[in-house]
Amino acid sequence: MAPAPSVSYSMTVRLEVPAGGTAVSQLTTAVESSGGSVTGLDVTASGHERLRIDVTVAATSTAHADEIVEKLRGIEGVVVGKVSDRTFLMHLGGKIEMASKHPIRNRDDLSMVYTPGVARVCMAIAENPEDARRLTVKRNAVAVVTDGSAVLGLGNIGPKAALPVMEGKAALFKRFAGIDAWPICLDTQDTDAIVEIVRAIAPGFAGINLEDISAPRCFEIEARLREALDIPVFHDDQHGTAIVVLAALTNALRVVDKGIGDVRVVMSGAGAAGTAILKLLLAAGVKHAVVADIHGVVHAGREDLVGADPQSALRWIADNTNPEGVTGTLKEAVRGADVFIGVSAPNVLGEADVAAMAEGAIVFALANPDPEVDPAVARRTAAVVATGRSDFPNQINNVLVFPGVFRGLLDAQSRTVNTEMMLAAAEALADVVTEDELNANYIVPSVFNEKATQAVASAVKRAALAQRDAAA
Amino acid sequence: MAPAPSVSYSMTVRLEVPAGGTAVSQLTTAVESSGGSVTGLDVTASGHERLRIDVTVAATSTAHADEIVEKLRGIEGVVVGKVSDRTFLMHLGGKIEMASKHPIRNRDDLSMVYTPGVARVCMAIAENPEDARRLTVKRNAVAVVTDGSAVLGLGNIGPKAALPVMEGKAALFKRFAGIDAWPICLDTQDTDAIVEIVRAIAPGFAGINLEDISAPRCFEIEARLREALDIPVFHDDQHGTAIVVLAALTNALRVVDKGIGDVRVVMSGAGAAGTAILKLLLAAGVKHAVVADIHGVVHAGREDLVGADPQSALRWIADNTNPEGVTGTLKEAVRGADVFIGVSAPNVLGEADVAAMAEGAIVFALANPDPEVDPAVARRTAAVVATGRSDFPNQINNVLVFPGVFRGLLDAQSRTVNTEMMLAAAEALADVVTEDELNANYIVPSVFNEKATQAVASAVKRAALAQRDAAA
Repeated sequence: MAPAPSVSYSMTVRLEVPAGGTAVSQLTTAVESSGGSVTGLDVTASGHERLRIDVTVAATSTAHADEIVEKLRGIEGVVVGKVSDRTFLMHLGGKIEMASKHPIRNRDDLSMVYTPGVARVCMAIAENPEDARRLTVKRNAVAVVTDGSAVLGLGNIGPKAALPVMEGKAALFKRFAGIDAWPICLDTQDTDAIVEIVRAIAPGFAGINLEDISAPRCFEIEARLREALDIPVFHDDQHGTAIVVLAALTNALRVVDKGIGDVRVVMSGAGAAGTAILKLLLAAGVKHAVVADIHGVVHAGREDLVGADPQSALRWIADNTNPEGVTGTLKEAVRGADVFIGVSAPNVLGEADVAAMAEGAIVFALANPDPEVDPAVARRTAAVVATGRSDFPNQINNVLVFPGVFRGLLDAQSRTVNTEMMLAAAEALADVVTEDELNANYIVPSVFNEKATQAVASAVKRAALAQRDAAA
Repeated sequence: MAPAPSVSYSMTVRLEVPAGGTAVSQLTTAVESSGGSVTGLDVTASGHERLRIDVTVAATSTAHADEIVEKLRGIEGVVVGKVSDRTFLMHLGGKIEMASKHPIRNRDDLSMVYTPGVARVCMAIAENPEDARRLTVKRNAVAVVTDGSAVLGLGNIGPKAALPVMEGKAALFKRFAGIDAWPICLDTQDTDAIVEIVRAIAPGFAGINLEDISAPRCFEIEARLREALDIPVFHDDQHGTAIVVLAALTNALRVVDKGIGDVRVVMSGAGAAGTAILKLLLAAGVKHAVVADIHGVVHAGREDLVGADPQSALRWIADNTNPEGVTGTLKEAVRGADVFIGVSAPNVLGEADVAAMAEGAIVFALANPDPEVDPAVARRTAAVVATGRSDFPNQINNVLVFPGVFRGLLDAQSRTVNTEMMLAAAEALADVVTEDELNANYIVPSVFNEKATQAVASAVKRAALAQRDAAA
């Protein structure tokens, strides 16, 4: 499972080399013998004596990239100039911007976009606040809110360091669903403060996407905001992941021809994603679920749960899973299971554990970048394997879901997001994979499959409108 | 001072008229006899019997627009169809959007903009938080923050109804200074809450533009935020206005050949703008200033000020103006004054009051849309007259200032904004009007004069960098 050279560790190295001789061919050899990969080679200046060459190289890590540069430096006659990290170049100065939809060319434009004309638009909204959804950016705007407490797999790196992720998310919202998202990175990790702040900034947005907020605070923050606000609040790390997992599981079960109510599901991880996945699977009809965390299988009699806060997420899991009262370790629980879903830590299972699962086993090993079990190893005995990585088949990637979910919510002008809408989203996403396409290596569509966002958006919009009509 | 037909009350009326006869010419006559103005007439469909015509009409008010439509409806053979309000059309769906700077075409793009590549950028910022200004949108981002408590002249209309103004402001930030501003409309008017919220959202921005927050809360909010944050906080209603007024006064004094330290200045209005103008004028060298509010001239012995909170804005005014101890009414104070600056209410002065001012009087009547004194009337005896309106010479318009101020602050990566920078901005703006151009009807450049923002930005950047160097 040694990683392949990746564009995310890609650099462009500016070199001067002698015009004659073998230096140029030595460049490529040097990169490849170091395990890197040359993805571009441009002669940017040429003379009788010397050439200036920009070599673009993919490496496997920062250290590896440094190693390759040193190797290039060692070639006789080669002078290494500027080394540009392509990823950093892409982030330089930020990845997003604000754009005006109308040119402001002259006094007439100014008097309509701004004063005095804007006053009439303000008064229209003051008289009918719902008109804000018609006459302002609110209609299409989502706040991407984080406190930087659980950013990617990097942990509690704070609001400023989280900003590149939130900007990226905003860019994806636009790319996949035409949504205008803006990052809001909060300089507080206090639950009450976050609830108050997000509640207060809500008037300018039609939806709140919570992002990379650590458990268990994320549960309370989301619940209280949903109660307080008249726009949908969606913690993507929880529900985006849950929806893709349910869609993938739906199709994996089709591949192995098992029913969702019949299978025994064992999960590893009881954090934000794990809890949300569990709840959505139960809502979708899973009857036999067992969850393990770092202390082993969660059951009502477990020492740390006797007398635990009845509101705690772990207590909820104990009360709503494991009807057979399984105890012991994850490895024990997984024996004979039909489905394993890991959202926890690297290498908690080995080849023997997967081999001990039921016939037609389904393994979703979603820890990133190092899965719960090596997918290549798991695939030896499991029928279907999925990961969170882009270099294996069946990538469980939230990008398949969050743009479409919000597109549907915004189009329906929905005031909420709930389990019915999420089930509808998962079903729609699963159905993007047609009967003809479905197989063990294709249970979810590719991230760039245009149909994914469209299907999810339509399903969520339909569900939201149906519920509003039913409530009316 | 009856208003002229304006594009901010402009509509397009779709009409069907008989193809022959005089109906078409009657349309124009009907509009103009009603006091409207035809700014466009397009035949959008033509047949032997009937024409479909879109007539674009400027009116003076909403009621006037309705009147014109009724007049059109009264013409024999004319059928009135859809009436579209051009201003509302421009606001439909919002005036701004979020845009991604990079296309996301494929997996490689995705892995650099988002995961896994973004993780390295996050870690770089976690290690050196200042890098957020280099690697994220923070570098160029300004939050336009309001609580909707004092929107334009409309009063306390709340955060949703304020959004069209904040969007317009964001559009102007981009148009004039290339700044990425995003509106943040707060659903609270509690001072402590606003301070906490703005403090918390600051990591993603390089500047805070407070907007349309009512006095006296705006003073405390700004002061506390300046104390708490390491990015500049600028309440445009206060300081943007103050800078333009000082620039305009500088040039007006050049026209009448008086010195800023010699003139007697009388101000009407002690709200947010009034207080900020006063402070900046004093910093610029004004020695003889008297302020009147709705209760008359502010002086230390005034009944409501004896025992007033020493922190109050009015108390500050009493302590720092009116060295001669003038008492009485505004009208009394203005007698013999060199300069009148009104940021208060319509028609507080009449022709006789202006005539009683000193020779070479300067009158800035900035209440909008109805000034403190009719500018046409004031011009009969005053040497220089300015207003806030776009249909008179010498418009005092914040657009001349706020984009450049923030451009300068952002370019200098300034952590503060202070009086020195504002004085530099005013001086630079005044100097955009050259000696050859300067006259009583041209004391400030036009809003669309490109030099204004550039000059202000350079001056502010220079002042910010000089102060940082001095502090270092």
